[in-house]
Amino acid sequence: MSARLPPPPLRAVRMYLHAQHQPVALMRTDCHVCRAEGLAPRSQVLIVAGDREVQALLYQIDSDLLATGQVALSEAAWTALDIGDGDSVVVRHPPVLESLAGIRRRVHGQRLSPEELAAIVRDVVQGRYTDVHLSAFLTATAVLPLDAQETVSLTRAMVEVGETLKWNAPIVVDKHCVGGLPGNRTTPIVVAIAAANGLVMPKTSSRAITSPAGTADTMETLAPVDLDIAALRRVVETEGGCLAWGGAMHLSPADDIFVRIERELDIDTEGQLIASVLSKKISAGATHVVIDIPVGPTAKVRSKEAAQHLAARLAETAAQFGLVLRCIFSDGNQPVGCGIGPALEAQDVLAVLHRDDDAPMDLRERAASVAGAVLELAGAATEGDGMRLALETIDSGRAWEKFQRICAAQGGLRQPPVAEYVEPLIAAHAGRVVHIDNRKLARLAKLAGAPQSLAAGISMHVRLGDEVARGQTLLRLHAQTQGELAYALGYANEVGEIVRVAQ
Amino acid sequence: MSARLPPPPLRAVRMYLHAQHQPVALMRTDCHVCRAEGLAPRSQVLIVAGDREVQALLYQIDSDLLATGQVALSEAAWTALDIGDGDSVVVRHPPVLESLAGIRRRVHGQRLSPEELAAIVRDVVQGRYTDVHLSAFLTATAVLPLDAQETVSLTRAMVEVGETLKWNAPIVVDKHCVGGLPGNRTTPIVVAIAAANGLVMPKTSSRAITSPAGTADTMETLAPVDLDIAALRRVVETEGGCLAWGGAMHLSPADDIFVRIERELDIDTEGQLIASVLSKKISAGATHVVIDIPVGPTAKVRSKEAAQHLAARLAETAAQFGLVLRCIFSDGNQPVGCGIGPALEAQDVLAVLHRDDDAPMDLRERAASVAGAVLELAGAATEGDGMRLALETIDSGRAWEKFQRICAAQGGLRQPPVAEYVEPLIAAHAGRVVHIDNRKLARLAKLAGAPQSLAAGISMHVRLGDEVARGQTLLRLHAQTQGELAYALGYANEVGEIVRVAQ
Repeated sequence: MSARLPPPPLRAVRMYLHAQHQPVALMRTDCHVCRAEGLAPRSQVLIVAGDREVQALLYQIDSDLLATGQVALSEAAWTALDIGDGDSVVVRHPPVLESLAGIRRRVHGQRLSPEELAAIVRDVVQGRYTDVHLSAFLTATAVLPLDAQETVSLTRAMVEVGETLKWNAPIVVDKHCVGGLPGNRTTPIVVAIAAANGLVMPKTSSRAITSPAGTADTMETLAPVDLDIAALRRVVETEGGCLAWGGAMHLSPADDIFVRIERELDIDTEGQLIASVLSKKISAGATHVVIDIPVGPTAKVRSKEAAQHLAARLAETAAQFGLVLRCIFSDGNQPVGCGIGPALEAQDVLAVLHRDDDAPMDLRERAASVAGAVLELAGAATEGDGMRLALETIDSGRAWEKFQRICAAQGGLRQPPVAEYVEPLIAAHAGRVVHIDNRKLARLAKLAGAPQSLAAGISMHVRLGDEVARGQTLLRLHAQTQGELAYALGYANEVGEIVRVAQ
Repeated sequence: MSARLPPPPLRAVRMYLHAQHQPVALMRTDCHVCRAEGLAPRSQVLIVAGDREVQALLYQIDSDLLATGQVALSEAAWTALDIGDGDSVVVRHPPVLESLAGIRRRVHGQRLSPEELAAIVRDVVQGRYTDVHLSAFLTATAVLPLDAQETVSLTRAMVEVGETLKWNAPIVVDKHCVGGLPGNRTTPIVVAIAAANGLVMPKTSSRAITSPAGTADTMETLAPVDLDIAALRRVVETEGGCLAWGGAMHLSPADDIFVRIERELDIDTEGQLIASVLSKKISAGATHVVIDIPVGPTAKVRSKEAAQHLAARLAETAAQFGLVLRCIFSDGNQPVGCGIGPALEAQDVLAVLHRDDDAPMDLRERAASVAGAVLELAGAATEGDGMRLALETIDSGRAWEKFQRICAAQGGLRQPPVAEYVEPLIAAHAGRVVHIDNRKLARLAKLAGAPQSLAAGISMHVRLGDEVARGQTLLRLHAQTQGELAYALGYANEVGEIVRVAQ
């Protein structure tokens, strides 16, 4: 048998090509390495530089944009390899992706073992999965949902491939909202209340999956959230709490990759949701967790039964990791607060903490309810007294004081941006607001540019039950570009009945 | 409401970028259109040039490779738009992809209506689906398999988005082999026999899905197969039969897109298989079809029961389209012929047609059995006499004569290429060949470069039941590059027992 001859090295060229998380490589069609290795366009290639390697999607080019012997790389590949222009890299076939056999077995109805899920998650985090593979994994575990054992195994696998934070405190609290309810931005208020009452709450949040804003998107309009682990630890040790983006610190990194695909599919199933939420909490070192599950016909969870089912599965999975978990069910019939979109939701948070006269009362109540559960679960309030203590913490100004200190520790409190283009949607006739479609609202806010455009989104000017006059403003669209404003308006006109007014 | 302002045009730049079927667009991050439209990397964009449009995957670049106001396009996008360098194009958000709602419903366990499947297939053919969407559709319809009604609807949708051939003949025959059996290259022989006996057999074949060679790949080593509809019609009108690549003539174009994803996933389920096969046959204008289903433990169909199930579903679906269909079950325990890979299989076909002394008898028998069924189904032989007539057509030289005429009509018979690197795998000990793993063989041939490298693959030197000596050659690996040869050898050493020799 002939020994394996390594392909000769190529010179790396930084292309300043942005492709999100995706490593991309560009080589000449006539490149000797492409020919020797039999590499075709859109194959996956392994790029090795010293002791670092990355798998990339290969495109080929028939032009002199690249010289012979060069390989151009996207930013994600460049960063992963940590190289300089002109450095030598070796490009070759990636190893056979054995973990795909598990996905094929899963497609054919068999369950995945802990070892198979661990192998899949490892390959995902190593960047070995293409979009096609990632989508197949997430779809296969959505059509035939993950069972209890698979959910535990997936959660554990997702924790194990990332960093895990350890805190020098017996109780570390966390919270999560299952989402699907636009605007429901309680987290910054809850963290401020918990930390003001002496609890340790190192909150890491994600960016939006399918919603117009995640907590990290909203918080980013108020303070830097892109903290590394050292910075996060410093903030929490000083202030008891923080409000950071989880993706920057490699906690459950597989989750960030899955989220990108789920966003593109607009699919997020129970088992995936549980593994996503719990892997982040466990990695962040939480011991006590409150989960808020809004229930409503157009929220993510549509019935009390579904909410109870989810709560039971969450508790059952959490117990496997020694995590104390309490779910609370809340009203998911309409948005919470006035704003939908990062900056607009941040304005609501500020209004509640400032105790402004026009602060949205529903957001205040909701945040106090979650914070109350956190205080009770952690023993900082007696059972039944949590909400009172939470409201008192807001009203005394202690929550606002703590919030400012946290933002300062993260790099400085800042003012949320304001959108350049604002356009109202008005009532076509007089009547009473009888229905608000959360899903259409979320889509509308996204079409207006949220969450990529931080100032974009929707401000609500009516609530369920309000009487409105013909021509009265129902909501306002906020956009950073005319293109997006027009796109969102087009959708609103086409789909109709986002806010239903009965005559 | 403000009127939609169309984004200003950009100048198109041909990048000579090869990305298979995938339209790709490259724009500067600071491009005014990207900013005005809020376009992010890896978003889908709509590119419009006159009355043509294409959806493309957007990457952004921070460099002077592109000038302000330019958009660079991949070859697939360039061809679809049919433009010249510097032509004006408009780039904007694509319309909302409504058909994805059907896929989400399907993921959640609901069945797809004919209208939903038609909308999905239309969007697929329009290039509106990303890899993530395509993979989700194929995975969702694999985990919860397509039912009878969905299979009929998908087949019809796939026929309707493409061209359909009509023939001036009451009976038009076709055949298909379900595959999974390396080497089983009966089609060229069957077409030659059928056409030599006066039948009309306008055979269009696909390239490999998950196998080391499709019939089109094999035929391409013997004659041009990339015929357009006019050329195909001319060949069939003159010779009665042809052996063309179906993808070149836009018959069931969705199939070619699905195949690309199935190949990446190595998944091919019953409903998808039926829709794929029948949509091609119906589009090609067939009235009578024979389906060969090899059955064996490592063939695609593993049991007689599974074969009968598939046969029943094929017949049931075909009947909905007025297609007369007969399935024959064949031995799927080991490869047919000696060669695995395009050129190596072509050598076997030539040997049978030439009536060489060392021609693989199993391939001859198998081809005559399928051809016999075709002759009987079409009334060119009485029931039970088909195989005798088929063998007689080979032995008289009429099949070889007809085959040469068909190849000449397609552009000229040519010699299959020979691989540059050949390496034997030898028996580690003496004994009897008791098992041949078709799946591992197929993978081995693919790692050696088949079907992209036409000369690559495997030649088998033993069959089940053979007695072998220690050191005797079991098979030979053929590769066009040292990299691929080494890669295949590495796999063979690692996986072991591709050909099991019992001591």
